[in-house]
Amino acid sequence: MSINRQTVIFKNKPKIIGHYSLVGPLEGAGPMKEYFDYILQDDTFGEKTFEKSERKILEHIIFNAIDSANLKPSDIELLLSGDLMNQIVSSSFAARKYDITYLGLYSACATMAESMAIGACLVESGHFDKVCCATASHFSSAERQYRFPLELGNQRPPTSQWTITGGGGCVLAKNGKGACVSSITFGKIMDFGIKDVNNMGAAMAPAAMDTIEMHLKNTKTKVDDYDLIVTGDLGKLGSEILIDLLERKGIRLCKNYTDCGCIIFDKTDRVFMGGSGSGCSASILNGYIIKKIEKGEYKKVLLVATGALLSPTTSFQGDSIPCIAHAVCIEGGQNAI
Amino acid sequence: MSINRQTVIFKNKPKIIGHYSLVGPLEGAGPMKEYFDYILQDDTFGEKTFEKSERKILEHIIFNAIDSANLKPSDIELLLSGDLMNQIVSSSFAARKYDITYLGLYSACATMAESMAIGACLVESGHFDKVCCATASHFSSAERQYRFPLELGNQRPPTSQWTITGGGGCVLAKNGKGACVSSITFGKIMDFGIKDVNNMGAAMAPAAMDTIEMHLKNTKTKVDDYDLIVTGDLGKLGSEILIDLLERKGIRLCKNYTDCGCIIFDKTDRVFMGGSGSGCSASILNGYIIKKIEKGEYKKVLLVATGALLSPTTSFQGDSIPCIAHAVCIEGGQNAI
Repeated sequence: MSINRQTVIFKNKPKIIGHYSLVGPLEGAGPMKEYFDYILQDDTFGEKTFEKSERKILEHIIFNAIDSANLKPSDIELLLSGDLMNQIVSSSFAARKYDITYLGLYSACATMAESMAIGACLVESGHFDKVCCATASHFSSAERQYRFPLELGNQRPPTSQWTITGGGGCVLAKNGKGACVSSITFGKIMDFGIKDVNNMGAAMAPAAMDTIEMHLKNTKTKVDDYDLIVTGDLGKLGSEILIDLLERKGIRLCKNYTDCGCIIFDKTDRVFMGGSGSGCSASILNGYIIKKIEKGEYKKVLLVATGALLSPTTSFQGDSIPCIAHAVCIEGGQNAI
Repeated sequence: MSINRQTVIFKNKPKIIGHYSLVGPLEGAGPMKEYFDYILQDDTFGEKTFEKSERKILEHIIFNAIDSANLKPSDIELLLSGDLMNQIVSSSFAARKYDITYLGLYSACATMAESMAIGACLVESGHFDKVCCATASHFSSAERQYRFPLELGNQRPPTSQWTITGGGGCVLAKNGKGACVSSITFGKIMDFGIKDVNNMGAAMAPAAMDTIEMHLKNTKTKVDDYDLIVTGDLGKLGSEILIDLLERKGIRLCKNYTDCGCIIFDKTDRVFMGGSGSGCSASILNGYIIKKIEKGEYKKVLLVATGALLSPTTSFQGDSIPCIAHAVCIEGGQNAI
């Protein structure tokens, strides 16, 4: 293990021994549908409120991620989770259900990467083993908490993104077959002064730029060394801004770059700039990316999950939007299936 | 380092090389006043909104905790922080100010212990060094977010606690003089079905019970081995419930037990069951406890910080209150001043 301030390069790479993704009907009709483990027919998931639907989605993800590793919840030493709800209640209530030692985290849509990065450090150090990392989001619970009551039928501005319904989770362990976490970079807050809460992609792009630059520098790698560099979730506009920002730094993202928010929905969907929400990168990572790595189609992928760390209150009080990006590098293990 | 599921016993004990506490005027008039590093004359701290006051308090704490270790913010590799505000915005905005790599956490009033416990693992493993852990709360921002507008002048029920204005922070490092973190126990969610949001102490007591029982068992220690076992923040009623619950398990808390919420205010203050809020255990730990250890008056203290992981939404939707407690054992170092 070597470190360079923000970055940890693992010598004993934690293995991803289980993973699971679940999405709602809209996401499940999109181009990634074949990769998701479960697609809801009805985004209420049989619950009476959208908040309880989100909680049930996360409970379902945690159980099945653990099950996919042929483990029971009682085998898991630590659950690292967070979500978009005030006081991250979806995560805390899901942790209550399974009686697992629990660490609550929050970095908005970067929560999947934050949980995996901390989890990987705790597994490599030997402090914990068999750690579950998971998050989820729900369009309707997020919309009514952050923006407007759904019943209002508000028009959405063209720069807006669509909080996805769904999420994903994985189990990290010292030993086992599967993909592995080879390095991580924790992010710093970046704030370029953007105050428009309907233009999160533009607000978050500088955070992705900074974390990608630091990760490449600290790991002494180049863009070409990765089969895929994937941000989550800048959306269309944010991704274009990121490409511009990095080009000025002499880093050229090209064919091997994409964004979780850009690939989760069909282009004909009315989602404007694309998907967002903590479940977006979580479902793409635990659905598409890890499966591609396990099949040997990707060898090395850098996930750079971005989060906009505002609240409605900070916006009402005139603040700009502080953003962060945490990066996790995932590689095919020597024992990859 | 040895681990036992929830507990990590450190071989190379992370040192607490800096610490700082700050409280508001009411807290600063109480029995702990001589231990706090800074007492506000005016709880607005010169800001126009209480949310911005809370943010400024946390910024002040982070800067001065780092300064007390004779370091600059740029020397710090990682900031671990969280708070009670929706989307933990006080922490994220404070992290923006100092340009430190940042991990956002949430476990309500247990956040100080969560941040120190994760921080201590990351320092012992060598993944990071010079890690700052901090949190704060503000009576007025919490009151209007969780309960009622202040202008309403609502009557408070006799089982209620008083969110403190203030907080604390510390710097953990591999080497240095001072107290050290010798072991930690991460908590599980406990929920005994209490739904009364004005009786948090009763809701949180089972979580404290479970974590204390696990910590003593896993570290093979007895209540008498500690100069002080201090929960934060069960308040008067919650502390009595904890004593009862532990007695049934054959664990007898006695003279060496207290609760941060019970000791921060004067008995004549109208705070009913005592203090609460993420700043409560943070200010008592970084003010009173660590200073007592540095002076050699305490050799071994177990802080068991408790958090009620509800939100107003979960209560409105009829849910009970899931709670957690994280424990941190602090000892006088061999090099204690």
